[in-house]
Amino acid sequence: MYERMAVTKGGFGCIRCPGSLSDEGHCQCPPGDILVERDVNGNLLEEARCVTCNGNTPGLSVPNSSGDRCERCQATFINSSCVCNPPNIQAGGLCFPPGSLSTNVNPSVNYAQLKFSIQSAWFVKNLYSSSAACLVFSNLTACQALGNMCVMNMHSFSGISTDACRLFNTIFRARAPLSSTQDISYWRVNLPWLYYGDEPGLASRVLQTDPVPIRFSFRGRNKNTDIKLLAAVYNVRGEFLRWEQEAGRSLQLCSETATKQAAAFSFGTAYQQSCDFSVAELLGTHPEPLFYDVFMDLGGGENRKLLPLPTLIYNQQYNGRFINQENMKNWYLSRRIFLVDTLSGREKSISSQPKVIRVATSVKIRFQLVPRTQEGQVYPPLMTVTYSDVLITDINTQTVSTTFAVEYDMDQNEARIKTDTALGVMGGVAVLYSLLKTVSWKRRIGSPNIDVEAILKFLLFYAGDLANVFFAVTVGTGLYWLIFYKAQQFVSVALPLPAQEEQFVTYIGCAFALKAIQFLHKLIIQVSADIFFIDWERPRSKASRTAQAGEVKRDPAPVSIWRTYFVANEWNEIQTIRKISPTFQIMAVLFFLEVLGFSNLALRDPWPTLERSSQAYTPSYSLMLRYGLAASLWLCIGLLQVIFFTVFHEHFVEDKIRQFVDLCSISNVSVLLLSHRCFGYYIHGRSVHGHADTNMEEMNNNLKRESESLCGQRGLLPNTEIQTFQVSLAERLRMQYESIREPLSRRSGPSRLMDAGSANLFEQNTRAYHTMNHFLGSVIDHAQPEMDYIVKDKLMFERVIGMEFLEPNEKSIFYNDEAHSFSDLLYYGNEATLLIFDTLFFCVVDLGSQNFVLASVLTYVQQMIFRLIRNTLGRKNLVNKTLVDERFLI
Amino acid sequence: MYERMAVTKGGFGCIRCPGSLSDEGHCQCPPGDILVERDVNGNLLEEARCVTCNGNTPGLSVPNSSGDRCERCQATFINSSCVCNPPNIQAGGLCFPPGSLSTNVNPSVNYAQLKFSIQSAWFVKNLYSSSAACLVFSNLTACQALGNMCVMNMHSFSGISTDACRLFNTIFRARAPLSSTQDISYWRVNLPWLYYGDEPGLASRVLQTDPVPIRFSFRGRNKNTDIKLLAAVYNVRGEFLRWEQEAGRSLQLCSETATKQAAAFSFGTAYQQSCDFSVAELLGTHPEPLFYDVFMDLGGGENRKLLPLPTLIYNQQYNGRFINQENMKNWYLSRRIFLVDTLSGREKSISSQPKVIRVATSVKIRFQLVPRTQEGQVYPPLMTVTYSDVLITDINTQTVSTTFAVEYDMDQNEARIKTDTALGVMGGVAVLYSLLKTVSWKRRIGSPNIDVEAILKFLLFYAGDLANVFFAVTVGTGLYWLIFYKAQQFVSVALPLPAQEEQFVTYIGCAFALKAIQFLHKLIIQVSADIFFIDWERPRSKASRTAQAGEVKRDPAPVSIWRTYFVANEWNEIQTIRKISPTFQIMAVLFFLEVLGFSNLALRDPWPTLERSSQAYTPSYSLMLRYGLAASLWLCIGLLQVIFFTVFHEHFVEDKIRQFVDLCSISNVSVLLLSHRCFGYYIHGRSVHGHADTNMEEMNNNLKRESESLCGQRGLLPNTEIQTFQVSLAERLRMQYESIREPLSRRSGPSRLMDAGSANLFEQNTRAYHTMNHFLGSVIDHAQPEMDYIVKDKLMFERVIGMEFLEPNEKSIFYNDEAHSFSDLLYYGNEATLLIFDTLFFCVVDLGSQNFVLASVLTYVQQMIFRLIRNTLGRKNLVNKTLVDERFLI
Repeated sequence: MYERMAVTKGGFGCIRCPGSLSDEGHCQCPPGDILVERDVNGNLLEEARCVTCNGNTPGLSVPNSSGDRCERCQATFINSSCVCNPPNIQAGGLCFPPGSLSTNVNPSVNYAQLKFSIQSAWFVKNLYSSSAACLVFSNLTACQALGNMCVMNMHSFSGISTDACRLFNTIFRARAPLSSTQDISYWRVNLPWLYYGDEPGLASRVLQTDPVPIRFSFRGRNKNTDIKLLAAVYNVRGEFLRWEQEAGRSLQLCSETATKQAAAFSFGTAYQQSCDFSVAELLGTHPEPLFYDVFMDLGGGENRKLLPLPTLIYNQQYNGRFINQENMKNWYLSRRIFLVDTLSGREKSISSQPKVIRVATSVKIRFQLVPRTQEGQVYPPLMTVTYSDVLITDINTQTVSTTFAVEYDMDQNEARIKTDTALGVMGGVAVLYSLLKTVSWKRRIGSPNIDVEAILKFLLFYAGDLANVFFAVTVGTGLYWLIFYKAQQFVSVALPLPAQEEQFVTYIGCAFALKAIQFLHKLIIQVSADIFFIDWERPRSKASRTAQAGEVKRDPAPVSIWRTYFVANEWNEIQTIRKISPTFQIMAVLFFLEVLGFSNLALRDPWPTLERSSQAYTPSYSLMLRYGLAASLWLCIGLLQVIFFTVFHEHFVEDKIRQFVDLCSISNVSVLLLSHRCFGYYIHGRSVHGHADTNMEEMNNNLKRESESLCGQRGLLPNTEIQTFQVSLAERLRMQYESIREPLSRRSGPSRLMDAGSANLFEQNTRAYHTMNHFLGSVIDHAQPEMDYIVKDKLMFERVIGMEFLEPNEKSIFYNDEAHSFSDLLYYGNEATLLIFDTLFFCVVDLGSQNFVLASVLTYVQQMIFRLIRNTLGRKNLVNKTLVDERFLI
Repeated sequence: MYERMAVTKGGFGCIRCPGSLSDEGHCQCPPGDILVERDVNGNLLEEARCVTCNGNTPGLSVPNSSGDRCERCQATFINSSCVCNPPNIQAGGLCFPPGSLSTNVNPSVNYAQLKFSIQSAWFVKNLYSSSAACLVFSNLTACQALGNMCVMNMHSFSGISTDACRLFNTIFRARAPLSSTQDISYWRVNLPWLYYGDEPGLASRVLQTDPVPIRFSFRGRNKNTDIKLLAAVYNVRGEFLRWEQEAGRSLQLCSETATKQAAAFSFGTAYQQSCDFSVAELLGTHPEPLFYDVFMDLGGGENRKLLPLPTLIYNQQYNGRFINQENMKNWYLSRRIFLVDTLSGREKSISSQPKVIRVATSVKIRFQLVPRTQEGQVYPPLMTVTYSDVLITDINTQTVSTTFAVEYDMDQNEARIKTDTALGVMGGVAVLYSLLKTVSWKRRIGSPNIDVEAILKFLLFYAGDLANVFFAVTVGTGLYWLIFYKAQQFVSVALPLPAQEEQFVTYIGCAFALKAIQFLHKLIIQVSADIFFIDWERPRSKASRTAQAGEVKRDPAPVSIWRTYFVANEWNEIQTIRKISPTFQIMAVLFFLEVLGFSNLALRDPWPTLERSSQAYTPSYSLMLRYGLAASLWLCIGLLQVIFFTVFHEHFVEDKIRQFVDLCSISNVSVLLLSHRCFGYYIHGRSVHGHADTNMEEMNNNLKRESESLCGQRGLLPNTEIQTFQVSLAERLRMQYESIREPLSRRSGPSRLMDAGSANLFEQNTRAYHTMNHFLGSVIDHAQPEMDYIVKDKLMFERVIGMEFLEPNEKSIFYNDEAHSFSDLLYYGNEATLLIFDTLFFCVVDLGSQNFVLASVLTYVQQMIFRLIRNTLGRKNLVNKTLVDERFLI
């Protein structure tokens, strides 16, 4: 019949069929039969034949997969025939003898994060058969497949149901009599190694007992920074695929350039790489999970050794408890991980869309240094894996973020104790020093009582000293890490982790806050100091030059005020000059950090190189190194500037302070500065020529005579050069001073009682000014016997502790002071405070923003603002205290 | 016999063998025979049988690959039996009829870069059979495989030997009668599309005639920036593998994060990514080449259209000529590329180590905008591929560098012509303006002749004006690109490519050099200007206040020089003050560029965003945008500062210039400044109180009286306020001035004739000073009738062009000048020049270093140095011209 003709399987001919036809037009045989179209020599038959395979002895055969040949049936079926008859159990293509394993298994996967579990198609199909094949036949692949199912369950097992891990453990225990693999007691023969034991404290024994037998070194002949990871890769069916030599790259889901990915395994480089994946992409690239047994390659050529990496599954549950999120002694270390599992979440069939996928969103490898190692020894690194369950809703818009990190840790307690000890000791010394300062201050204001003000003052002094202590300790610590971390040959220290830096940042914050208090305190003292310009010029009568005395002076030409204006103007101008150029300071620091690339020294890797390729991996910054770097650079450049300005610039170019003292002398004007009630500074400016209020010829002649040493010396005492003094005023002198000064100081108060007072007040002021001028002049001239003074040198020790031992009871005391310490009332004399304040400001802004440029800009603005404030208030003070019109202070 | 027993193929039983045993212990049959172990029902036979397959009709069968079954032989063999008898030709498993294709083919691959060619094992094996199968049987796979061999030869064909491409072309021409695929005439049915035609000029027709029918737009409702590339991927055997949807990623050999790789196909983002591969890595990842037919997906949902990307193989040879490295009209466009070919270089066998590998080291896709498009139209993008031949020496150390780039281009001629036109026109105007300045200068120096000096001066003026022209044009251009490129909605402009920026950079260089000349010129003028302080104070006799006249003045008290010192000191201090704070300027610019991220605006992509994620791709910088950004930002901040200082600060805080004028008035000192021989400035400082050399009461009284308007006004003319003037000196006055000044100016010369001259000289100087003081005072007082002067207003037009129309023949002319234009002799009056110079300096450093921080630091240093030079020279000039001792200028 024509209908019974069919196309041969080869497709090149026709053949008659014994039975029906398939849809494709080939012959079709009943199930269990095979279709024979050719004889054994290859000749096409007239009619195709359907042949039944002989399932019993001696054939023991079943049709092959394409249904055209009889082949031997699977070995487990062969008892008498190729059928698995009860009580045998057929599962997964195998036939198990009865009683080998209870069929009551739980093929569900539990998603604890999503709070539900599903019946996984893969588990339903394979869990029982794998377990049974593993247990009964010791089938290697089946054992691996069972282990993989346990891994897909995140190594968790519950006490109630027979899940994958429980089955694994059952078999593991059943294998106890057998020998272990590689002498590792947790690794039974034929089974995968999934768990370390469950004794309490095992984790710390594994992780902190035996160092890894290789040594890391950053430079030199034995340079060794390569961490080589190796992984045995299995597929989900339990088949061993390969040894993955570049396991370090495979574990990083995020694609990156090879150079950057390789940086993760350069010892000492803190590495972190994150990225987002769309779920669709993950489904496409990971149809099946791969399983990794990760080892570290210890090298050794032919007999190379591998170190298994203990793994901590962060989400692992033990009877419902997240034991690995608890204390280390409860940890339950394990082995074998996967990265993306899109298989176990498929509910209906293995080819359906998964309901949930599980992704290792964080893989972190952490090396811990052996304490006090000098030779780069580390404990076995711990790999921590965190899985996330992602419920699939819309694969095109959902994303998953994954992170891979390598970090280095060491026990920081010792360092912390040292820091705290240093702080404690130096803090104690600071108390003493501040007390001393307070005592000195009490003497200088001439008040012996301990009152609230004294306590406040003590606290202010203490703030400054404590700030210095904090600053010294933090800079020391930062510099310690910078030097020891970046310069070590054998690995001996690891940087504190970001979490461990918090205390350090707090210290810096304290230093800054306290320094700011000290700075403001100094600023307030400076802008409220008393100042008076003593004009020595006496009006010259018509014939004053020829006849010095005797003649009665009537209506003399007025003494010109312009010299005083000049001196006041100069004094106003030197208020905020400094020993360094602050803007140059900022620019230089910026240049070093950002242009020369010093900022790269603060990266969390051990390389002290300034140039980094843009291709290379850039680790994150260490706050500690950033601070250590910025502060020490700032201080260094500051110091160099101070040296340059004091050694070179002031000697060979211009010394503003010296110029001011000279100006005083040339202009015949002395300056009395009182920083405290009874303490201050005196610049002796009496002209050696008697008069300074003269014309150009005489001025030039005077200068020439002086340069040729034809006249006396400028000092207060005859034949001395010393013009600058610290003065301790006797109480009586101070009282007199205050009584004269009263009308002047009243000016600043409200003038509510006198309406027409302005002119009146001004006259009073001028009178007070003249009185003061005359009074102070006479005191200096020893013309007031009851308010006399003596001049002496300060003792060495007095200089060091900044305190006077003698109390000026009867006579005031003028201490010789060649160091121009009156500049303490200017920015100039407080360079240390200003420099440290600027440093801290710069560093604090940088720590907050991790941006040196912003720190520079803000530091500049800060300096500008404070200089403006200081200048404005200083000028106002000068106007108030000296009566010089503000318009001349330009 | 025992020896004849063998293991069955299944491995589970034993069987007797008819013949010998193989090494594995199975039965072995002679070649051409198959081994039969079971009967058709699957029962194991007593003894295995060797059966010969029937190669003739009706069997037409040969043993299958595993040798246990007879199967039908390949169709091309079937004429009468399964043997290919001569004259048929057997090749590549096929049997070809005679005469179909000459067997004289050249299976060598030519490595032009290495200057040798090798017999490639792959070509030897497949070239003839593929060609024949393609030609004779129209075998699709064979045709593709042949095409691939042509592609591996880089599409090159020689005129002499029958290489792959020549064979391909032979077949291509043989197919001429057949229809083409997809209506593309270069794409014959069954053949791959390898070439566009070879008519001259075809390349420009293909590339520059029809725009792509989609429009790119950067924002708005129709935002469209996605470039979707699609590729048909074939393996080397000619099998179609897949449509690669993410072809853009596959073409990038360098691994990178997905985000960064995706940036390559965001329209408008100039993309370039390079990396190095070790040869070992390439061999591992690319055992066989893949071939890509690249298309651009034009979208369109169901009926989506694909645009084939014309490809230019840079190394393609045509009869030995590198036609694609020549002019565009000789280009020979093609299709289909590969990335890495490690196969064709294998010489002995296909599995041996290759002798040479060929890598696409540069893949560049270039979009060209349709000229004057307003709607984002582009021409078909051109993909340029450059292959490199790498001779394998040591696979572990050798590296290959590859680049993938996407760039955007447009016709820049129009823009260039516009720029050049602007330059020409403005340059012409600048000539006129400079001429005018030279004429004005000639008048002011009072010399009418045209001499070398005048020409030099003209050139100097012209340098400044031309610098302004260059500056205006470059800033305008930069700003144009910045605004138009970054703000466009529909794509209408593309940035000039780096090579096209050269001219622009040259212009900036010119602007900077010329500006520097102008700046130095101004500096020299400033530090050599004549200056004299006229002290109006007359010595007061003993009773000078009461009786003004009559009494004979004998031995009066000398007039104090301190007021002059004060004025000179102030003048010295205002030398380098500016209308802006230069350091703040730098800090602000740095803040905007580096902290707020304005520098990101200069990146070669169309996004005007300031914040860039560190994950995202960072394109390279455009020099043009960097310059436009930096210059306009600098100018903007500068302008804001000028406005702030002139409008707010000088009115409400402090105006140094006004203060100086006031100081002159209060101190009774006038200032005469001569910038040219016969032109200068005069600040009238005669005190309205007659005397200023007085004490504090009187000074304060004077000031009070003035503020209450109880005295005269300060102006030169009675009842005017105007104190500042521009002066045009009459020749006679100038002569007199010079004759008095002679001893002063002589000071700077060598004093070789007088040994004891120093004191003598000084006396001379002082005398000259007094004479000058008296002389100038009397001139101002109209006391010298023959050197009288008039005061008048300057005409509007005179102000604008900066030139005086009246020549001061008889009388000198004083022009009222309320704008304080004497500040032209200070930094203050030249803010524009300084600002532009700083801008250019900053930009030039930045263009050289691409580093804004370095530019800032160097600009600061530059300002510091020039300020130092200006101050030092200015002070020296002041000392020389006014006799004020240097020690008072502090």
